[in-house]
Amino acid sequence: MSAIKELTEYFKEIQKLSYISNLLEWDQQVNMMAYKSVEGRSEQRALIKKLLHKRLTSDKAGNLISEAEKLKDLNDIDAAIIREAKRAYEQEIKLPEGLVVEIEKTSALAQQKWQEARKKSDFKLFEPLLKKTVELQREKATKLETYPDLYSTLIDLFEPGTTYDWIANVFNSIKPKLTDFVKKLNTSSNKPDDSILQKNYDEDKQYKLSREILEKIGFDLGYGRQDKVTHPFTTSLAPLDVRITTRTTEPFPDCITGTIHECGHALYEMGIKKELHDTILCGGTSLGIHESQSRMWENIVGRSKEFWQYWYPTFQKSFPENLKDYPLEEFYRAINVVQPSFIRVNADEVTYGLHIILRFEIEKDLIEDKIQVNELPELWNSKMEDLLGIVPPNDKEGVLQDVHWSMGYIGYFPTYFLGSLYASQIYNDALKKMPNLNNDYKNGEFSNLLNYLRENIHQHGSVYRATDLIKRVTGEQLNPNYFFEYVEKKLYPIYQL
Amino acid sequence: MSAIKELTEYFKEIQKLSYISNLLEWDQQVNMMAYKSVEGRSEQRALIKKLLHKRLTSDKAGNLISEAEKLKDLNDIDAAIIREAKRAYEQEIKLPEGLVVEIEKTSALAQQKWQEARKKSDFKLFEPLLKKTVELQREKATKLETYPDLYSTLIDLFEPGTTYDWIANVFNSIKPKLTDFVKKLNTSSNKPDDSILQKNYDEDKQYKLSREILEKIGFDLGYGRQDKVTHPFTTSLAPLDVRITTRTTEPFPDCITGTIHECGHALYEMGIKKELHDTILCGGTSLGIHESQSRMWENIVGRSKEFWQYWYPTFQKSFPENLKDYPLEEFYRAINVVQPSFIRVNADEVTYGLHIILRFEIEKDLIEDKIQVNELPELWNSKMEDLLGIVPPNDKEGVLQDVHWSMGYIGYFPTYFLGSLYASQIYNDALKKMPNLNNDYKNGEFSNLLNYLRENIHQHGSVYRATDLIKRVTGEQLNPNYFFEYVEKKLYPIYQL
Repeated sequence: MSAIKELTEYFKEIQKLSYISNLLEWDQQVNMMAYKSVEGRSEQRALIKKLLHKRLTSDKAGNLISEAEKLKDLNDIDAAIIREAKRAYEQEIKLPEGLVVEIEKTSALAQQKWQEARKKSDFKLFEPLLKKTVELQREKATKLETYPDLYSTLIDLFEPGTTYDWIANVFNSIKPKLTDFVKKLNTSSNKPDDSILQKNYDEDKQYKLSREILEKIGFDLGYGRQDKVTHPFTTSLAPLDVRITTRTTEPFPDCITGTIHECGHALYEMGIKKELHDTILCGGTSLGIHESQSRMWENIVGRSKEFWQYWYPTFQKSFPENLKDYPLEEFYRAINVVQPSFIRVNADEVTYGLHIILRFEIEKDLIEDKIQVNELPELWNSKMEDLLGIVPPNDKEGVLQDVHWSMGYIGYFPTYFLGSLYASQIYNDALKKMPNLNNDYKNGEFSNLLNYLRENIHQHGSVYRATDLIKRVTGEQLNPNYFFEYVEKKLYPIYQL
Repeated sequence: MSAIKELTEYFKEIQKLSYISNLLEWDQQVNMMAYKSVEGRSEQRALIKKLLHKRLTSDKAGNLISEAEKLKDLNDIDAAIIREAKRAYEQEIKLPEGLVVEIEKTSALAQQKWQEARKKSDFKLFEPLLKKTVELQREKATKLETYPDLYSTLIDLFEPGTTYDWIANVFNSIKPKLTDFVKKLNTSSNKPDDSILQKNYDEDKQYKLSREILEKIGFDLGYGRQDKVTHPFTTSLAPLDVRITTRTTEPFPDCITGTIHECGHALYEMGIKKELHDTILCGGTSLGIHESQSRMWENIVGRSKEFWQYWYPTFQKSFPENLKDYPLEEFYRAINVVQPSFIRVNADEVTYGLHIILRFEIEKDLIEDKIQVNELPELWNSKMEDLLGIVPPNDKEGVLQDVHWSMGYIGYFPTYFLGSLYASQIYNDALKKMPNLNNDYKNGEFSNLLNYLRENIHQHGSVYRATDLIKRVTGEQLNPNYFFEYVEKKLYPIYQL
């Protein structure tokens, strides 16, 4: 067997173990919400991580990589397999097995504790495990030392090649523009009224509609599932087993937009070409690019007027008590209201970035030990006031709203807003090639967009790094101007400015 | 660390891998019914079996067992750990890794194919994978060679220490008694009328009631789940994570009795003492003893008059259109009707044994290559006619009804009827100690029986072999007379004989 083939095969077993690890986690989040003990699951998760660690850091892995690196004239896929295998090996070999196991055990326990704390809106319940999580992540970053600063090292795990400074540079240039834009919209004398969204919408009906939209957009229920959870997420349990989750408990229409968001992630994973299945490249290339897919479907498509021209009559039939006599135009304006709110995942497209910047700034100081875990609730609230002018009434709607930290994901949040920026830039390119794209949505037709994304993004999995991919697709590096062009073009008419 | 402690710890990782294997299978059966491909899952399941095989057959495992065997004056638990570790090691080391992997892959694919074939009632669809399964099991038995005959070797995997001859001896003595008993009941001039069960009972309401009964009996939903499936089963995903499944599609009240049956299995697993958690002894000691628990709860408790004295009013409220004016006494008689039927899991307590004998005889010839897979449908039907006097109208209600063969379980079926026999014998002992036990059920009180079972059976996990356990508990070896005493005492009054 050639060196590259052997390396590819060696890492396929690693990929399969990762899928098993994902199942253990998916099942915990979906099926074990009412459990009194997740101790057993925590140990099983740790065991799989230990086996992954052993296989990743073996001499054989190291040798296979060295051998493969000697090869010349590789195609893009083989080169990427070596690149990603080497990256995974070099990272993992710096981490002691005990740390890997401890991180996973803690994550399983902390997820359950976070759920309980969030439900009871009691940060103190979560505090000890969050403290431990932060310490473990700090230790991990210290060992990895990919970059001189800890936070960059953690960010790089989610957005390979990206540093704190690079993101801070992007975010700092955007922050004042975002706040100015929010202010400007609010000078309108004809702001949209979103009180229609505060009415009661039956949860089962919402869920049923979310399923219908999911399938229409292109999610194949023969290769995946949709389930209900506390905090929506998407995960792959095999190349042809991609699962999304939905919550119906949030204000309307977040069940719908949230489902479309997760569907965007799922379509990415489902669209990876067969050649890459089970290889180390069988996954989105970075979380920023992943979020570009989810946020594009959620917002650029799912909050467009054309989308609702198709779906609104169905919604009117499902919720006649609220929508029968309510005009589509006003509904469209309502779901695009820009206003400070507490919950990130429910935030509008403009203030969303501010939610991310808040987390980005907190994480930086937290990992560098400049702030302590017990100070988080207060700090969160004061930053909310600074950035968004509002203070959460409780921790459930503040510091406890997101699952990420419980999972040990520090450095993940900034990729969300990168996703919005990437999304606008990619969609701009799609529109150049298909200027009438949005008209498709009026007819419940989404395949042209999906095919464009499959062709340009999905099929490649992790073959190209985010920064290369965006250049391949759009001809230039990340350029936040597309985001502002998009929101201005959309929101000025909505705000009649 | 002492040799026994080291051995125990070494096998804990094996036990955890087994739980993970169970999750992969549970999830496939519960969540992937609509999937177009289970290829990925099949490979993941095979990977875990490969890892299990490697760990079980390692030199280290062999050495730890040899070291531990040198120890003297062991307590029951330590002795049993060595016994079971040695048994597992000696079996597994005879099997080539390739065979282990192939069996698991085939099982995952065959389960899906069986579902499809059963749905379409088309045996031909299932035939190729069943043929492969039989060949693989034959190869496995040939390698294992625990007993001179292949079928005994396979039976021993489910009922350690038990052979074909031993079971055939029991079954042959029972077979004529069973058929005579069925005939005798049918001489009654006042047979129960079960037409009430043929009416329509809302599936959701049935499921809700099954959940209520489950909890009342002692199933703690903080340590387990109940889900819907095609073929009901129970599995443990951790010492404190036991999951049962229910189907609502069968004739009333099989959703209820089937759920109680699975609950009986679950209570056994949930009742294993903490000291044994995650060890190789953390599971029922044999499938026969396991079935004694499920069939005791299902039939001796769940079809008793006292049980329905408590539950019937609730059922009358749920299904007033059928039951409001229908007397409890007649309902009790209806659910105890003895008559030949097609589906094993729905069979009454008496004809049930004949369903098992049918499978036992077929499996023996099948594994010894005396009959071919393609002859099964016809053979099944002709044996049904011989034993039960009826012929299934299609394969769905005949040879395709059970999931077991698709999973590679050949030699499993006979343990079901052993379970009925064990159940009567154990229950007889419980009644000796608590003569008024059945009165508990009138008040929805099940804890005395559960405590008796926990104390005498559940807590011990696999510490004692089935044959030892039954002697410990009841003072004698398996004695089928208790079964006949029980059914006669119950059914003569019902049939007014």
